[in-house]
Amino acid sequence: ARPRVGYFYSGKSGPQLLGDLARKKLVKDFKALPVIIKESSSVYDAVCTLFLEDVGTLYVSNDQGHLAGVVSRKDLLRAMLGKQKIEDIPVNIIMSRMPNIVVCFLEDSIYEVAKKLINNQIDSIPVVREVKAGDRQAYEIIGRVTKTTVTKAFVEIAGDQPV
Amino acid sequence: ARPRVGYFYSGKSGPQLLGDLARKKLVKDFKALPVIIKESSSVYDAVCTLFLEDVGTLYVSNDQGHLAGVVSRKDLLRAMLGKQKIEDIPVNIIMSRMPNIVVCFLEDSIYEVAKKLINNQIDSIPVVREVKAGDRQAYEIIGRVTKTTVTKAFVEIAGDQPV
Repeated sequence: ARPRVGYFYSGKSGPQLLGDLARKKLVKDFKALPVIIKESSSVYDAVCTLFLEDVGTLYVSNDQGHLAGVVSRKDLLRAMLGKQKIEDIPVNIIMSRMPNIVVCFLEDSIYEVAKKLINNQIDSIPVVREVKAGDRQAYEIIGRVTKTTVTKAFVEIAGDQPV
Repeated sequence: ARPRVGYFYSGKSGPQLLGDLARKKLVKDFKALPVIIKESSSVYDAVCTLFLEDVGTLYVSNDQGHLAGVVSRKDLLRAMLGKQKIEDIPVNIIMSRMPNIVVCFLEDSIYEVAKKLINNQIDSIPVVREVKAGDRQAYEIIGRVTKTTVTKAFVEIAGDQPV
């Protein structure tokens, strides 16, 4: 028989290759640093941190340093519409809290996380590692994936080669 | 000579196909509806519209209905930090204004717009059509492309085919 040399049809069309490669982009390669505030911080502290760190979403940690909540620009805007002074409102009153927080892990694909962002209508997902806190499971916060992260991944994929 | 039948190597590797296809996704196929407020609106009106319409960025139109400015959640948060009542601040005081607004067009690729979002560190770009306003050039606002739009395009590309 003739030796199989050269290029062979893989059975996959362009869009399939596209999807395959896009699905191989992992959270660990694209994640950004998390911006974390303590549960005891005020809404005013949170707004200041948001501007200082130039992010759209903050993660909130409890006394053990584990993930306790997530607070978005929208949560902060809503709190500022109220009558109460934002220096007097603790951020843990307005944050989304466990178990209502969507998380992801280092080995997840950007594609899976992008789907979670769209399906849950959120802007940011904390990258976490499972840890034990006594007899309960908790999350250590190790990164963040946002729509900015996905947009950067899109640009990298689409720009991989010159036109 | 033997006839050239079957599949041939196109000279392009997977990542090239990926980039080619990602660059073919156009603004006109992915854009969302713009949310527009008038220049005479107050910051308070803007915050309410933001929540009612569930968007992150508003476009501001002048008396002729043309693009005059862009106002983000961050602009609104900053205004709310001030001492003045947000009912008394017109949105055109705090908005980004022409010519400092990045715009895009129906025939642009999502890839080009994604690059603009990243390079300009913004969340939203108005889709516009050039019109004449007297002897000046102006923009009619016909859509929006945001990091959400790009994230949806990413999911669509990556999910085009089952794994």
